[in-house]
Amino acid sequence: MITASERDRAVKRALSYFEKAAIAITPEETNRIEVADFGLGRLDEVGLELLTYVNTKRVCAKELVLFPWQICPEHRHPPVAGEPGKEETFRCRAGRVYLNVTGPATENRVSKPPEGDEEYYTVFHEIVLNPGEQYTIGPDTLHWFQAGPEGAIVSEFSSSSDDESDIFTDPRIKRIPEIED
Amino acid sequence: MITASERDRAVKRALSYFEKAAIAITPEETNRIEVADFGLGRLDEVGLELLTYVNTKRVCAKELVLFPWQICPEHRHPPVAGEPGKEETFRCRAGRVYLNVTGPATENRVSKPPEGDEEYYTVFHEIVLNPGEQYTIGPDTLHWFQAGPEGAIVSEFSSSSDDESDIFTDPRIKRIPEIED
Repeated sequence: MITASERDRAVKRALSYFEKAAIAITPEETNRIEVADFGLGRLDEVGLELLTYVNTKRVCAKELVLFPWQICPEHRHPPVAGEPGKEETFRCRAGRVYLNVTGPATENRVSKPPEGDEEYYTVFHEIVLNPGEQYTIGPDTLHWFQAGPEGAIVSEFSSSSDDESDIFTDPRIKRIPEIED
Repeated sequence: MITASERDRAVKRALSYFEKAAIAITPEETNRIEVADFGLGRLDEVGLELLTYVNTKRVCAKELVLFPWQICPEHRHPPVAGEPGKEETFRCRAGRVYLNVTGPATENRVSKPPEGDEEYYTVFHEIVLNPGEQYTIGPDTLHWFQAGPEGAIVSEFSSSSDDESDIFTDPRIKRIPEIED
């Protein structure tokens, strides 16, 4: 649960990231930036700011903003209605992002699960993405990611997006935000 | 047909567009920027510079660069192997692009077919895209586009891309470039 004023503050902060990175968005888009705290109420630690450019039955593109060290928690995109799960390419546009996927655990990782939530993080193959670098995650593959010290902007190119079907390792998580007035 | 030195010049020019727009690309990507003159040998007038970020069976994302007034000629993406044709969203990142699609002809259009090639341009519903503005083109829909006076950078989010199956109105066009050494 986040308050309306927390949401507004996060939107303004996300807009400042877009501005600094010279990413143009329309006034209409400004009004529909999504702030996800995943129902945990610790937005600065576990959260994500998103702008969905397009989401059709076939194609989805989003811009993701992460504040410094902000984490998008571990989840996967399962098959839905006979289609394979969502396939995602993350392309770092600004800042740095540490992406963790299934695979051999990386030694001396930089990214770290939020304190107290360790049990809900199970994959530790860390991929570092600097601006211009990208990685494609196959369907139904567990992943989580954390921004570096300057935050990050990440373009996501994917098959159709249906947030409601995402499966988070942390059973407390609610993907669809609840905003308190 | 373009010469290797024309190609190199166009790549350098495209790189300067990316730099000006603060779009980061890797050295590996620099080496695979595609220069398409569509076989017409008039690159500055009819041509396109492209960087494909990702192209899987399901998802494709590219960055397109157009030099001032450069035109990507009229074409459509037909169904391939039982799949509907390619669906494309064009999002203007920098400069301005005039996109023409099927529909009522726009009065006082800014974009113009190349002189002498008028017979190969048949759709004149002009959509103006400034930075942050976008438009989604359905499968198998005729379209062509031209940059404004400052050129343009356009992000393309689409279903899988198979350039070889594109159908151009101009039968002289060869989509896959031939480079003369």
